[in-house]
Amino acid sequence: MIKIGVIGATGYTGLELLRLLGHHPAARVVWLTSENSAGQRLGDVFAVPPPLGRLSLIPLSEADLAGVDLIFCCLPHVSAQGPVAAARHAGARVVDLSADYRLREASAYETWYNHRHTQVALLAEAVYGLPELHREGIAHAGLVANPGCYATSVILGLAPLERAGWLNGTIIADSKSGVSGAGRQPSLKTHFVEANENLSPYSIGRAHRHIAEIEQELGMPSAGREFVFSPHLVPLNRGMLSTIYISLPEAVTEGDVRQSYEAMYAHEPFIYLLKPTAVATIAHTQNTNYCAIGLTLASGTRTLIVTSSIDNLVKGASGQAVQNMNVMFALDERTGLA
Amino acid sequence: MIKIGVIGATGYTGLELLRLLGHHPAARVVWLTSENSAGQRLGDVFAVPPPLGRLSLIPLSEADLAGVDLIFCCLPHVSAQGPVAAARHAGARVVDLSADYRLREASAYETWYNHRHTQVALLAEAVYGLPELHREGIAHAGLVANPGCYATSVILGLAPLERAGWLNGTIIADSKSGVSGAGRQPSLKTHFVEANENLSPYSIGRAHRHIAEIEQELGMPSAGREFVFSPHLVPLNRGMLSTIYISLPEAVTEGDVRQSYEAMYAHEPFIYLLKPTAVATIAHTQNTNYCAIGLTLASGTRTLIVTSSIDNLVKGASGQAVQNMNVMFALDERTGLA
Amino acid sequence: MIKIGVIGATGYTGLELLRLLGHHPAARVVWLTSENSAGQRLGDVFAVPPPLGRLSLIPLSEADLAGVDLIFCCLPHVSAQGPVAAARHAGARVVDLSADYRLREASAYETWYNHRHTQVALLAEAVYGLPELHREGIAHAGLVANPGCYATSVILGLAPLERAGWLNGTIIADSKSGVSGAGRQPSLKTHFVEANENLSPYSIGRAHRHIAEIEQELGMPSAGREFVFSPHLVPLNRGMLSTIYISLPEAVTEGDVRQSYEAMYAHEPFIYLLKPTAVATIAHTQNTNYCAIGLTLASGTRTLIVTSSIDNLVKGASGQAVQNMNVMFALDERTGLA
Amino acid sequence: MIKIGVIGATGYTGLELLRLLGHHPAARVVWLTSENSAGQRLGDVFAVPPPLGRLSLIPLSEADLAGVDLIFCCLPHVSAQGPVAAARHAGARVVDLSADYRLREASAYETWYNHRHTQVALLAEAVYGLPELHREGIAHAGLVANPGCYATSVILGLAPLERAGWLNGTIIADSKSGVSGAGRQPSLKTHFVEANENLSPYSIGRAHRHIAEIEQELGMPSAGREFVFSPHLVPLNRGMLSTIYISLPEAVTEGDVRQSYEAMYAHEPFIYLLKPTAVATIAHTQNTNYCAIGLTLASGTRTLIVTSSIDNLVKGASGQAVQNMNVMFALDERTGLA
Repeated sequence: MIKIGVIGATGYTGLELLRLLGHHPAARVVWLTSENSAGQRLGDVFAVPPPLGRLSLIPLSEADLAGVDLIFCCLPHVSAQGPVAAARHAGARVVDLSADYRLREASAYETWYNHRHTQVALLAEAVYGLPELHREGIAHAGLVANPGCYATSVILGLAPLERAGWLNGTIIADSKSGVSGAGRQPSLKTHFVEANENLSPYSIGRAHRHIAEIEQELGMPSAGREFVFSPHLVPLNRGMLSTIYISLPEAVTEGDVRQSYEAMYAHEPFIYLLKPTAVATIAHTQNTNYCAIGLTLASGTRTLIVTSSIDNLVKGASGQAVQNMNVMFALDERTGLA
Repeated sequence: MIKIGVIGATGYTGLELLRLLGHHPAARVVWLTSENSAGQRLGDVFAVPPPLGRLSLIPLSEADLAGVDLIFCCLPHVSAQGPVAAARHAGARVVDLSADYRLREASAYETWYNHRHTQVALLAEAVYGLPELHREGIAHAGLVANPGCYATSVILGLAPLERAGWLNGTIIADSKSGVSGAGRQPSLKTHFVEANENLSPYSIGRAHRHIAEIEQELGMPSAGREFVFSPHLVPLNRGMLSTIYISLPEAVTEGDVRQSYEAMYAHEPFIYLLKPTAVATIAHTQNTNYCAIGLTLASGTRTLIVTSSIDNLVKGASGQAVQNMNVMFALDERTGLA
Repeated sequence: MIKIGVIGATGYTGLELLRLLGHHPAARVVWLTSENSAGQRLGDVFAVPPPLGRLSLIPLSEADLAGVDLIFCCLPHVSAQGPVAAARHAGARVVDLSADYRLREASAYETWYNHRHTQVALLAEAVYGLPELHREGIAHAGLVANPGCYATSVILGLAPLERAGWLNGTIIADSKSGVSGAGRQPSLKTHFVEANENLSPYSIGRAHRHIAEIEQELGMPSAGREFVFSPHLVPLNRGMLSTIYISLPEAVTEGDVRQSYEAMYAHEPFIYLLKPTAVATIAHTQNTNYCAIGLTLASGTRTLIVTSSIDNLVKGASGQAVQNMNVMFALDERTGLA
Repeated sequence: MIKIGVIGATGYTGLELLRLLGHHPAARVVWLTSENSAGQRLGDVFAVPPPLGRLSLIPLSEADLAGVDLIFCCLPHVSAQGPVAAARHAGARVVDLSADYRLREASAYETWYNHRHTQVALLAEAVYGLPELHREGIAHAGLVANPGCYATSVILGLAPLERAGWLNGTIIADSKSGVSGAGRQPSLKTHFVEANENLSPYSIGRAHRHIAEIEQELGMPSAGREFVFSPHLVPLNRGMLSTIYISLPEAVTEGDVRQSYEAMYAHEPFIYLLKPTAVATIAHTQNTNYCAIGLTLASGTRTLIVTSSIDNLVKGASGQAVQNMNVMFALDERTGLA
């Protein structure tokens, strides 16, 4: 049994993680923390039935960091820096769901997150937690930086092209996300009446922070590659679709493209490569840890359209965190996620 | 041209009112106020196109109360007390959309709203603004207290029975409201992810404040009449349906019931009495000032089921306010609302 | 391993059942049938990833009825009569998710479903599959008639009162259901644009067929008991809430009521009795096999309001079917459902 | 008073048109047709209150084509060909909301719609009904071909660039549409449970028929211009957003772009050019005849992102049809649409 601690359990990723761990045959949650709701049970914070609802929340100061094998940190960025370091110092392995340890360069972090990184030494140790790209590193990592949801959908949608050297020119990702991606903190933008029957682009162009990790993982920027990213908020709870546009090199055929995806993803347990005529929809992956990918060449053009769908709370956050745990502890990667 | 001032224009009822007044051939908005957004235009606060979006917001302190014929007050309860009184003292007629002047007895107000009423003298002057019940009073009123949305749907659904003396025993109203009824202030309950794909009862039984005005207008409580009220929040923006259960007196037939509604509502411009086999749905009245009413006798029983639908922002708030204005200024009641 | 066959696998209850069985450690699906989609894979019919999506559909005529231990029949009412009988004759135990074997009296079936029952002999053998009421019978049953979704929410909400002898007068259930309860067959009523931003009562009063099984299980009709039932369609995919109104006998206190529920449900694995001040919402049970129950006495009255929430596809259909399977095969009732 | 006939009044565009005409001070609907619902009232087909609901539907064969000044044809493509021709022969001016008269070349029609055009002579007479591009032609037209919804949002979003000669390379439009754009015919794709909590690309690349009219109006294809179009179905009733990506020529600055839009649209009554930092959302135009346009240059790149929002049933269909009527009859273009 892997003994688990969860820091920051009262956001949507924390809840989803606890749901998944509740089904996991090899994991046992020992403690979970919340500063605002310490002393309460999870059922007081969310409308969840027992046994999940009976779990008790404690403040981080009372958590026995050394008494667990693995700590999931579900705090927001910036605020995760310290607790992750404390957990590592106590000897626990860590999966951090925030952005704090995703960027290899502290300077990049400081540019994109507009905040100093206080744990630069730890950055060197962190492995970017996308198993399809970094399985080996994750297996032996002390600290895994779980990817952002947008980043997961875009990187998985493009990685075979990058490997093949076919990622050139202006790459455009038009992404659509359900509202749970914005977290549980009420705001006007996520107020029901404002978000329902609406659809809003935001931070479009070169403004969204996930650009940093997408570029890091896909070898951008580089000569001749440019990335444009347009997130949109859509009126549904969970799910994310990225529609990605790439101009293929002259010689590359639709068949070549397909082969590159099949080669890279044939044995991946959570990649669902759709049939040639199919496009990915949000329904394809909702409530699952899959990334569904569709490939369409706009007829008569060189523009490849990749549709890439994930559940932002599962493959885009807590499911991927469990997948990373499975890799770290040498379990079948699908355990608790099938 | 009726010169209009609007106090508190940046909530959903304020916006809806300004939309309606924008179409009204006999009304001209002279000023609109907001304390939080003074100095901005309405288009900065809401995603509304011109010409509505170009209207400028001023603080109440700069509003020329005496320079308009009619003031709509769209502030929340308690905070409307003072501005309404100031407007009346300045000589303007007032339609108040809050609950502050709906209850004839200050003591009832203080019981239900848990707050002292500082303008008791004005209470005597206020007319409850449901034209179907108080058209004459409204026509000559200086101050009209615009009804609550739940109250409108329930009172209109039951008024003919009350007139006929058939309202007895336990009357149950199971009401379902779209989220705009809860206002524009973000909260966890109205956070998209919490309200979407969910449906929540709240303040059920005898806890919701609209009970006070419903009972006042329907002659309750009285010997042998008891009112039970269950509001529910449903995942849609606008619209309200009340499903109301009444036990009919022995001698009363389904035909008698129908006749009582037809008699009372035959010439009402905004009551849509549905055909015998039909039930009211939210779609029947969305974006209109109508109240749609369906009458169903549960076969083999004495239980009458009244389904009563309104748009909570129109007949349940701003549309009714404009209807009241039309009555107050001797215009065709449908002006600007057809 | 329990060998499983599924008849009629391409509706929402069929899909949900296959999802649940996919997680079940003691069940193995051997075959699944569809007349319209025979020859296809489940992933061709629904946007579901592998391994679920790879399951192959066969026509019923090719299904080896005798080669499995348990058959789930997910056909619509009337059309389930024959296949269930065939399955029983082949020696398989059966959980039927249709209404065809729920009513003990063929005459009642013919009255409510307006169709002759061709398998009257089998009716005598069928056990109504609500474990909270009929666990013993289910354990030994050859044929379990899985309850309707509305019926589950109402019966579980009222059973303790019925046992205590406190169910009298007019009992009113105002139920709200997500759209998946209406099945997967497209219709104008379930067309997105018609159902979204709308809420519609239908079959209100004494018209809905689930009344028959509710009355059968709660000993109605009887002298002095009358049941009024109002279903409503609400714009969400899955979930159901029944708000139930009962007039309590004079001597019965709120504490008595609570005790009756605690006594009956204390050891039930899937009843979530909420704290005294809480009401059940759809979120309480979504994607779970729980029934959440809230108890509220309308203050100053004798009216008890029971709020009862289930997921219509889980406790209201396929989850309850798996729970019944667990009881039938002497497994821990929570297996595969936790 | 303009005397109006409406052919095919029982789809969503027909209903929206009748709503708008109901407010129009200079138009009077003389008759409306439906083959399936002839003999019924509009209130039998839609949940609409009087007076709209009282309008009677007749079969087309009984419509007095010569007795009206203007006929709106709301039939689907292909089936509009004949009735439009009949209306013209009877002497009425026509606004056709189908695609049948939008393409100047019959061969293009036959390629994209896979159907022969039987009224080629009339094609020469038809004017593409986008007032911002063809106001003069519309004013004198006998037959106006009302644009498609996607086409309206894309063409208005790009027209200033086309005029300036800055439309080059691969132009990508990623469009998102509410479900009413798919019409009122029930289908699995538009079944509530399938469309809700989902988001689906469809006909992406070069497959959607609106490409034909977009290219016609924007001078494509031509040397060095290529158009890629990705429609998506999103879970909301009405509204459409196109996010459009264009690579700007080297010398063109963000200021130049802005000036080109301001120059072309400064006096347009229904273009809402947003402030430099703002993006268009669906809320900006819902229930209005506006097209809202936002301009964003992805920083550090040459990629211009145009966000263009319309209500698919208003500016994308019936509102634009009324705007065209206003132009045709020399009324203020905003009449009935403000």
